[in-house]
Amino acid sequence: MKIAICQINPTVGDIAANRDKIADNITSASLKGADLVLFGELSLSGTPLYDLAAHPDFTDRCQSAISDISESENDCMSIIGLPIRQDDDLFNSVSLLSGGQEVARFFKAMPVSRDELPYFAGIDSPEFGDDDNDNGEQLPANIINCKDVRILIAIGDDIQYLSSLDCFSSKAERPDLIIHLNAKRFARNIIEEDAESYSTLARELSTPVISCGITGGSVDTIFHGGSAIFDKKGDLLLRISNFTEGMAIVDFTPDKGFTGLDGKPIDKKPLPAASKSASTRHTYKALVMALKDYFTKNGFKRTTIGLSGGIDSAVVAAIAADALGHQCVTGITMPSRYSSDGSVTDSLQLAANLGLTCHELPIESIYSAALETLSPIFGDSPFSVAEENLQSRIRGTLLMAVANKFDTLVLNTSNKSEAAMGYGTLYGDTSGALSLLGDVYKTEVYDLAEYINRNGEIIPLSIINKAPSAELRENQKDSDTLPEYGLLDSILYRLIEENMPPMECAIECNTSIDTVVWVARMLKLNEYKRWQMPPIVSVSRTTLTRDRRMPLIAKY
Amino acid sequence: MKIAICQINPTVGDIAANRDKIADNITSASLKGADLVLFGELSLSGTPLYDLAAHPDFTDRCQSAISDISESENDCMSIIGLPIRQDDDLFNSVSLLSGGQEVARFFKAMPVSRDELPYFAGIDSPEFGDDDNDNGEQLPANIINCKDVRILIAIGDDIQYLSSLDCFSSKAERPDLIIHLNAKRFARNIIEEDAESYSTLARELSTPVISCGITGGSVDTIFHGGSAIFDKKGDLLLRISNFTEGMAIVDFTPDKGFTGLDGKPIDKKPLPAASKSASTRHTYKALVMALKDYFTKNGFKRTTIGLSGGIDSAVVAAIAADALGHQCVTGITMPSRYSSDGSVTDSLQLAANLGLTCHELPIESIYSAALETLSPIFGDSPFSVAEENLQSRIRGTLLMAVANKFDTLVLNTSNKSEAAMGYGTLYGDTSGALSLLGDVYKTEVYDLAEYINRNGEIIPLSIINKAPSAELRENQKDSDTLPEYGLLDSILYRLIEENMPPMECAIECNTSIDTVVWVARMLKLNEYKRWQMPPIVSVSRTTLTRDRRMPLIAKY
Repeated sequence: MKIAICQINPTVGDIAANRDKIADNITSASLKGADLVLFGELSLSGTPLYDLAAHPDFTDRCQSAISDISESENDCMSIIGLPIRQDDDLFNSVSLLSGGQEVARFFKAMPVSRDELPYFAGIDSPEFGDDDNDNGEQLPANIINCKDVRILIAIGDDIQYLSSLDCFSSKAERPDLIIHLNAKRFARNIIEEDAESYSTLARELSTPVISCGITGGSVDTIFHGGSAIFDKKGDLLLRISNFTEGMAIVDFTPDKGFTGLDGKPIDKKPLPAASKSASTRHTYKALVMALKDYFTKNGFKRTTIGLSGGIDSAVVAAIAADALGHQCVTGITMPSRYSSDGSVTDSLQLAANLGLTCHELPIESIYSAALETLSPIFGDSPFSVAEENLQSRIRGTLLMAVANKFDTLVLNTSNKSEAAMGYGTLYGDTSGALSLLGDVYKTEVYDLAEYINRNGEIIPLSIINKAPSAELRENQKDSDTLPEYGLLDSILYRLIEENMPPMECAIECNTSIDTVVWVARMLKLNEYKRWQMPPIVSVSRTTLTRDRRMPLIAKY
Repeated sequence: MKIAICQINPTVGDIAANRDKIADNITSASLKGADLVLFGELSLSGTPLYDLAAHPDFTDRCQSAISDISESENDCMSIIGLPIRQDDDLFNSVSLLSGGQEVARFFKAMPVSRDELPYFAGIDSPEFGDDDNDNGEQLPANIINCKDVRILIAIGDDIQYLSSLDCFSSKAERPDLIIHLNAKRFARNIIEEDAESYSTLARELSTPVISCGITGGSVDTIFHGGSAIFDKKGDLLLRISNFTEGMAIVDFTPDKGFTGLDGKPIDKKPLPAASKSASTRHTYKALVMALKDYFTKNGFKRTTIGLSGGIDSAVVAAIAADALGHQCVTGITMPSRYSSDGSVTDSLQLAANLGLTCHELPIESIYSAALETLSPIFGDSPFSVAEENLQSRIRGTLLMAVANKFDTLVLNTSNKSEAAMGYGTLYGDTSGALSLLGDVYKTEVYDLAEYINRNGEIIPLSIINKAPSAELRENQKDSDTLPEYGLLDSILYRLIEENMPPMECAIECNTSIDTVVWVARMLKLNEYKRWQMPPIVSVSRTTLTRDRRMPLIAKY
């Protein structure tokens, strides 16, 4: 049988567009002789849906799209992911289409992610029990029969149930092929880890595995794709490129396994190996895709970015120029009385390197007017965080004014280290439509800068080499307040990603318990700022705003 | 047996303070002869905990507090709610303390709320099966025996399993008393609905029911309390006042039911009846408690509020003066070239009525400086939403500057109608530490104003009677852009709270489908603003930011 794996980029909620994309893929695959065409988890609806799945008519419209697709003139079977309502429950499901109609449905047994749990129901422990298929043959509930090949369908995390041969109670129940339909959220190293898991699964079950994922950015969630084929020895035969749409068609027989459409065997490929450079490259691609898709899917073309002369805004600008095209990115440099000369000159150089328009809007006259306006209340109180934040909020206000005037979106430039420590001004530099770096530690921002400069200097070295500073008072440096970023990030990583107790963390980071306790305390006290941050594009498993939510009353 | 019901106000995460409060209540109840002392769901830890329950040591510290409490010198048994970790799972649980130790634990079987689902595990369908208690007697797993009274313990939503006599498989399994430990999130009319449900449950099971809840504000979540006693006929005998801590002690025997400590029967009380005035009164009390507890529990005393001369900021100021004391509330009126005279004079009158300090900070000089700064980019483009938002953001910036300077918190003044429609400026009037009215429709804000004025004019009638306006351009009125609020709110209520399809909504609201579709479209397009709003105090079942979350890509 010929199987087509379609890794598509659906737009969440846009059923009509996703339906057309799926139908086009089926037609194209069918022309190439495909007997079975696969699409990933929730490929018809997009994901995460949140409460949209419960919106009036939403599941009806999904069903109607399934009817449209099934009625198109193709000879193949296809499997498509969508939400299905049954009685009062919503299920993360797939539909099997054949012969012009929907012939079967399978529900995801075990929603586990936070994007699903509040919205989708689960079913009791998944059954490999009996069910009639169209031929009256007794088949396990989630097994289909296509061209005499017995295929087990697993949706998303349900694949966890398949851990050993014991999961099939009799040999007769064993499938010839496992197809895993998924929508895997990107995180550092997940591509390599998943490949390893599939390889192990195929080898241990001695059963070939096909993964069919979705790709694309859905606001703060990136789906890298991860579609691949593993033979029963666990060898990787084929991968569809991540971060892009693609289709692969292979021939499969239970006896011979996978071959190309020309009947020739497929060479095995090395499993992707995790490395720092791969992690940085994937993170970069993920961020470009997130930005591009957020704008494209929302009908925006242009962005306005505040350029401080620092590395965070430089990296954001470079990613934006890559994702949207340099002509769609406007930089604004907003020097104050406390800005270094480099704040403007480095920003102008960056803009020149990237081919961006860059405007200079000094904030002095607004800042002076604000201080004058506030003077009846402030009196002669000493310069404080109020005056520092004031400058940041004036910049945020100017950026938003430019964005509003020309119908563009502001990109946030905060990084994960800053977001963790509250080293940023609410409604000032924490603002923006989307946070690209809010899940990227400061030290990782430098890795991205190095990657961006891999073929030559895009981000000026003067930006990379200067000491980080908010420049909100005389001669201010981040290191006046924060531990040096190498140490800070290693502490934060353990506190956030590993949930490590402070004492252990201090030992591992070779620093004092006082430093760790202080960092943990700042992390705790600044949760309130993160509650009001823009959506942060996830590139880790522990994005602060969605995977580590803490009460705003910090008495713990 | 004598049962003490303790309705306490725990602080989320503050185990030491909650432990001491619980221990004090036990001592006090014990002195009055109590045999069994009850505390609500998660009373030791507070709630919602989000990821805090998984924080290093958190459940250990809860266990340690349970040991401290159990070792105190009291003769009574007590039941306390807390998170318990078992293997790798966290459970919403209660501990039964007796004779100086923890003698039993019960787990909530079915977490259902969004505050629990991602964090707490459930257990398979709840068992009324066999389990040994300390006496070697066979008892259902969630039944305790205290002074020969068989008591069934239900936690939170698990009470739903008890719907008829059939839920007890044999007569021997029937308890003498049902105790429901809960932490019920306040919503309009929930007090009356819950009382009705308990009454029905008690009557249908012919079993007395005690509800023991918690009270207090936990950021955006308010627990009203709801502690009460119902006899087996379903008659309400006793209620602890909502929105306050309290303890009630009664005597109970399976034969005679409840009596006072003096042995006298307790008169039955009428069930609370839902009404618009009760709903407004409860909402007001809930908002006062939310504000007071957010400040107290976070160690803040003072607030800064922007007074626009409109009804929203007036109601917020009145609530703040009630919750924190008038001397802790500073009003700031910030007129612009587009402000009406009333913007300042009405604000000053309001401040005088409430006894607030009020400062006037005209924004003209900052606004002019900003326009001048932006002029190289704006050129001679016509006045647009950019200039409107600019004014709002300047006001937000000034408010935050004052708040930062004097270490106070800004209160947000957006209402639910505005939040739904995006009729507000991100980082301008949508800013603040806490949104008090973000779950209160505009028409309900008028109800609150009327309630505030019940004993005399606190909010000037000129504020109540003026046409709502953002005053961001010449002669602007909300009604230039939005349908009249009576109609708008009735449309929004159906779209949001009832998830009603637009056509049905148009018919019910006696308006055109075009109007409803336009409202639905604005609701959809402005989700991005709500993602960055401050925590909104919930007073309904469908708070926009937590109960109705939609994708930020609005292609649906």
